[in-house]
Amino acid sequence: MKTLKILLFIFISIHVFAQKARPRELGIKIGVLPTGLLNAITDVPGVQVGHFTIHNGTDDHTGATAILPISGNIFQDKLPAAIFVGNGYGKLAGYTQVEELGSLETPILLTNTLSVSKGMDALVDYTFGFAENKDVMSVNGVVGETNDGGLNDIRKRLLTAENMKQAIANAKAGKVAEGNVGAGAGTVCLGFKGGIGTSSRILPKTLGGYTVGVLVQSNFGGVLQVAGVPVGEELGVHKFKKLLKDYGEDGSCMMVVITDAPLTAKNLKRLAARAMLGLARTGGIASNGSGDYVISVSTATSVRMNDANNEMLRESKELKSGNLDVIFEAVIEATEEAIINSLFAAETVTGYKGYKVEALPVAETLQILKKYGRLN
Amino acid sequence: MKTLKILLFIFISIHVFAQKARPRELGIKIGVLPTGLLNAITDVPGVQVGHFTIHNGTDDHTGATAILPISGNIFQDKLPAAIFVGNGYGKLAGYTQVEELGSLETPILLTNTLSVSKGMDALVDYTFGFAENKDVMSVNGVVGETNDGGLNDIRKRLLTAENMKQAIANAKAGKVAEGNVGAGAGTVCLGFKGGIGTSSRILPKTLGGYTVGVLVQSNFGGVLQVAGVPVGEELGVHKFKKLLKDYGEDGSCMMVVITDAPLTAKNLKRLAARAMLGLARTGGIASNGSGDYVISVSTATSVRMNDANNEMLRESKELKSGNLDVIFEAVIEATEEAIINSLFAAETVTGYKGYKVEALPVAETLQILKKYGRLN
Amino acid sequence: MKTLKILLFIFISIHVFAQKARPRELGIKIGVLPTGLLNAITDVPGVQVGHFTIHNGTDDHTGATAILPISGNIFQDKLPAAIFVGNGYGKLAGYTQVEELGSLETPILLTNTLSVSKGMDALVDYTFGFAENKDVMSVNGVVGETNDGGLNDIRKRLLTAENMKQAIANAKAGKVAEGNVGAGAGTVCLGFKGGIGTSSRILPKTLGGYTVGVLVQSNFGGVLQVAGVPVGEELGVHKFKKLLKDYGEDGSCMMVVITDAPLTAKNLKRLAARAMLGLARTGGIASNGSGDYVISVSTATSVRMNDANNEMLRESKELKSGNLDVIFEAVIEATEEAIINSLFAAETVTGYKGYKVEALPVAETLQILKKYGRLN
Amino acid sequence: MKTLKILLFIFISIHVFAQKARPRELGIKIGVLPTGLLNAITDVPGVQVGHFTIHNGTDDHTGATAILPISGNIFQDKLPAAIFVGNGYGKLAGYTQVEELGSLETPILLTNTLSVSKGMDALVDYTFGFAENKDVMSVNGVVGETNDGGLNDIRKRLLTAENMKQAIANAKAGKVAEGNVGAGAGTVCLGFKGGIGTSSRILPKTLGGYTVGVLVQSNFGGVLQVAGVPVGEELGVHKFKKLLKDYGEDGSCMMVVITDAPLTAKNLKRLAARAMLGLARTGGIASNGSGDYVISVSTATSVRMNDANNEMLRESKELKSGNLDVIFEAVIEATEEAIINSLFAAETVTGYKGYKVEALPVAETLQILKKYGRLN
Repeated sequence: MKTLKILLFIFISIHVFAQKARPRELGIKIGVLPTGLLNAITDVPGVQVGHFTIHNGTDDHTGATAILPISGNIFQDKLPAAIFVGNGYGKLAGYTQVEELGSLETPILLTNTLSVSKGMDALVDYTFGFAENKDVMSVNGVVGETNDGGLNDIRKRLLTAENMKQAIANAKAGKVAEGNVGAGAGTVCLGFKGGIGTSSRILPKTLGGYTVGVLVQSNFGGVLQVAGVPVGEELGVHKFKKLLKDYGEDGSCMMVVITDAPLTAKNLKRLAARAMLGLARTGGIASNGSGDYVISVSTATSVRMNDANNEMLRESKELKSGNLDVIFEAVIEATEEAIINSLFAAETVTGYKGYKVEALPVAETLQILKKYGRLN
Repeated sequence: MKTLKILLFIFISIHVFAQKARPRELGIKIGVLPTGLLNAITDVPGVQVGHFTIHNGTDDHTGATAILPISGNIFQDKLPAAIFVGNGYGKLAGYTQVEELGSLETPILLTNTLSVSKGMDALVDYTFGFAENKDVMSVNGVVGETNDGGLNDIRKRLLTAENMKQAIANAKAGKVAEGNVGAGAGTVCLGFKGGIGTSSRILPKTLGGYTVGVLVQSNFGGVLQVAGVPVGEELGVHKFKKLLKDYGEDGSCMMVVITDAPLTAKNLKRLAARAMLGLARTGGIASNGSGDYVISVSTATSVRMNDANNEMLRESKELKSGNLDVIFEAVIEATEEAIINSLFAAETVTGYKGYKVEALPVAETLQILKKYGRLN
Repeated sequence: MKTLKILLFIFISIHVFAQKARPRELGIKIGVLPTGLLNAITDVPGVQVGHFTIHNGTDDHTGATAILPISGNIFQDKLPAAIFVGNGYGKLAGYTQVEELGSLETPILLTNTLSVSKGMDALVDYTFGFAENKDVMSVNGVVGETNDGGLNDIRKRLLTAENMKQAIANAKAGKVAEGNVGAGAGTVCLGFKGGIGTSSRILPKTLGGYTVGVLVQSNFGGVLQVAGVPVGEELGVHKFKKLLKDYGEDGSCMMVVITDAPLTAKNLKRLAARAMLGLARTGGIASNGSGDYVISVSTATSVRMNDANNEMLRESKELKSGNLDVIFEAVIEATEEAIINSLFAAETVTGYKGYKVEALPVAETLQILKKYGRLN
Repeated sequence: MKTLKILLFIFISIHVFAQKARPRELGIKIGVLPTGLLNAITDVPGVQVGHFTIHNGTDDHTGATAILPISGNIFQDKLPAAIFVGNGYGKLAGYTQVEELGSLETPILLTNTLSVSKGMDALVDYTFGFAENKDVMSVNGVVGETNDGGLNDIRKRLLTAENMKQAIANAKAGKVAEGNVGAGAGTVCLGFKGGIGTSSRILPKTLGGYTVGVLVQSNFGGVLQVAGVPVGEELGVHKFKKLLKDYGEDGSCMMVVITDAPLTAKNLKRLAARAMLGLARTGGIASNGSGDYVISVSTATSVRMNDANNEMLRESKELKSGNLDVIFEAVIEATEEAIINSLFAAETVTGYKGYKVEALPVAETLQILKKYGRLN
């Protein structure tokens, strides 16, 4: 019975998603670089995204989102990766090994704070599922989280490892559902309902023509800016509206950056750091209670870190650092737009103990953007 | 003869400064928190700033800026401090000891890339100048820099330790000269003449009523935004206007954050990280060639780190982390405004080998801000 | 039935432990500082240690070890803490939050690589078990691990969250079982059977009279030295004996340092770094495949980080950095001795797929120590 | 006149050096790997070392040591490099840029604490000296230091940039003078006269046959161990002999690791961290007042970071991480031996204000080593 309910709500969520226009369709332009075809992390060739969503009555609004940078057995075909900690009040799994070795050996899972352990189990199961991994005894699952405990009865710990595996199984290329789906089901961002958002940028041919994709799980505080316009102030909804002693604790933001530009861990860490600059442009402040993490990965074959063969040396071909500026710009723009996209896609939710979080009022927001000359 | 010329140019620089209105006077509002009386780092009680400036013909446009968080012998009255590296392509002196011990024992000097050594010498001289420091054999001078080698014949290494000491001697409370002065004499920012800028924020009484002050030496690249308005795009002046393979290397940004809120190194590091979010809001991208450093200091007496007395234990009284959010917001806003202030204050300079960098066209910029509804 | 078997094996393990003399009893002296009464981490007042051990046929040799720095609700009475990463090829949970906030809010669990998730679940359960934590929605469990996959059929993932909670429930003050117990059931160290080991040092009264305790889970590679004597070379058992291309991957070392000296996170991080120097003196090299982590905690009441009360400021009284040297020495000595203790306590185990790891041959080792003049 | 005196003392210093036997010649064996031909950092092909030494009456005992990893214009042929901070109470120049970019662009200079600025100036001069560097406007000189202020009247700041350049000019391949030379002229280590020391290890052919060389400037505290033998305790000379409240502040240790193994910055950082394990084995504790830094560099041509050519991509061929263990062992052993070598080479010095530091009593030490069965 429960399963049926869950599936039903997923359906609804997807349905709703289909109806809402994305900011760029509404005339909001962020940054100076062009987006990819889908304006999504899946514009990076090979990237797949899957959600598992629970919207169950008022109590449960949670889920998981899986990001697969490449198809196939990533454990045997490790990717250069880095994680940047914008603010470390969080429980992300996998940090220190990625930091030490500079590689990613599992898909990335995003979920809620108390379900990270289930994500880790799911990634071990997933890895063990490949026949050629039959001797693997150590798996560094990367699982990010934000706390959806405002809308979701998080102490229940409803999500199972099976649910997480379902998110992985759901992963596919193409359009990515945004808003109240997957790990974004119960998140709150800048005073409004947050959720999953995604965006991408294409680099000019002369600079390699690479794609940079970003996916976020938005759940953080600050003073909302949309394309530089002070929407939070205009709507009178923001963290510092009332300068009380206690604002309450904010949530966090998980950001995933994937590119097909050939980069190794050292420069991927620098890319990851730039995502925080994108968050800043939406009005985010990386508040004390925030767990703001950026996971960045390169899918380029010339930098793969498969050490299984017998050679002592590994050859690689990577982008020189002098070419990074436009990629930094791409990361910043795509992160900013992914967050804004999550807000435009999310729907009002009434959750645990009747706590209601309104969606960003799109019509009003567009009016404000118009007033500020930012609607094309 | 040379000395006379230099003094002359300093005079002119100050004169020019006095004539230009600051953005806030022109109706540009950044952020939601109120500024201090001077809207300057010197709003933090006890803070003093001094410049030494060289504008000498076309060849030499450089200088030094000294920031004294407290008066008196700081070596014997060490302050909690932290340094955050936004992008480490720079030569700042003093990083590792501040990181290890969490304290500042000298004034802060800002200058050009090849003059850091002279700043270190000056800070040793300065420290040795106090009678009670007569047994001191180790001084960790903190000297930041950006590269003014576009406008300034930097390879000459014109600045002396004496010049640096002059900057310290010039330090005073009150109004702070901005623009083409001190360490900002020859800097370039976001396509326009950069320089020194400063701003401050006052926290609400219920949150302690503390002051946060920021001073920047702006010399970095990106796409200028003023209060969220895409001025760089509108003016057609920005790093990515032409997507060529080679943008050239950008400079850097030095940011100094001082507060009288009682904070120790661990949280000061977090404050410092937020200054990068302020830089992001001006369109900065922390480009590959950028040395972006933030030095943050608390002047509160309850957290001083004078270990000279005979007690084994040190008592301190510090702000709990749960109260940091509004300080983070203050740091972000003041950094953003300090950078914008530096651009509005700077004047067009024709420098080394005839390279000319235009000041931000203020009238046009105000027109653009008006068009975008951001002029009060 | 399974439960009964497990209990039986625990019993045997404890029994065996009781019979083996500790190195210091055998005349081996490490370092220059005196040990505490028990020469164990439990010499630090209030510290409790508990094991849950599985020795089940040949296949299963694993377990968990819980370290409780203080009794009672640690979540409401957070302790200053730090984690140092000697080599980050590991899956320790809790790193980034401890790094950001400098506090520990749960007991510490050690276990095997694939059971970290179960430890996290157990620590959430444990935290939720306190009535006053009824509104807690976020728990940063600190769970360390090493890989016992040589002797233990680790892919089975036998350990449950209940087992972990049992380790916590088993925690008590007083003597600490060493060797093949708890998280040390299946570990291998420097070519011999490793396991749990512990040691302590007492500081002189003039330096505060504080206690420093260390507990290790030893599972790493190198060339064994006992009190500086080249035992590994003499026994012909060490990592570099045969200079083949492939040594195989080593395990790791988890080190827990607890002291009642009043220290905050910044200095606790420095203590933690010194534990690696103790590991070095046993012949450890922090090999590529090693996850070497040190968790350090202060139990002093004058530095507690309970932010729940309404005060904006927190008072603390901490040891000045100038007094740390003897504590550094204590950490190094106690870590070295804890590792050596783990080797002397461990017993030969034949494990998964018949893989047999011999215990350190104590009699022979003593002969070697005698030859090198290191037996008192 | 002064110059003549200085040259005279250099001559004496070299003369003295030539007379003392190195530990290995005396039958002391450290570690399990073979040394290179000279047992010196110059065993790595292409590495050159030069000293500039001042022994001037009692007041002045100081100098500089230059290490050139490769000949020629290193600025145009940058080498992968990393710096590990064992304890950051020091003033090393160049850290953050090496950390950000992972490359070294100057020779390495070691000197005293207050002469780092002069080293930086010298490295700029040196770099500007190459015709092809005529447009260079930014130089990240790497200058390490320890404090020789016990024996040397450090506040005089006697050393000039010219002296530093002389150290570079003196650099040559072949035998390296150890002890009271160059940057080691006035240092104190583990209670005895310290100084410059060097050692090397050769990897087995099956593991690449690479060379690892280490050079140290030893100036730190602890309890001396020679090849694991407690020499400091036996001689009654060590930091913790009298457990007084105030041990005084110790100096520091600079360690330079160079290898021809093809490694990039990420793994070079890991090598650098291992040098601290070598220091630990000599009895070092990385005391509070210590500035312990390790600079590691690869000279392999397949990993050079010359970005000057027009290609966007850079090809490289580097050792896989799975092959690092024997290199880690080599770094640890060579660091340990380099420190011991510095102690055996150094001579008794009576310095500033009559402060006398005895050399390690070699005959007595050999007796102790014999007693402990460690003399071959």
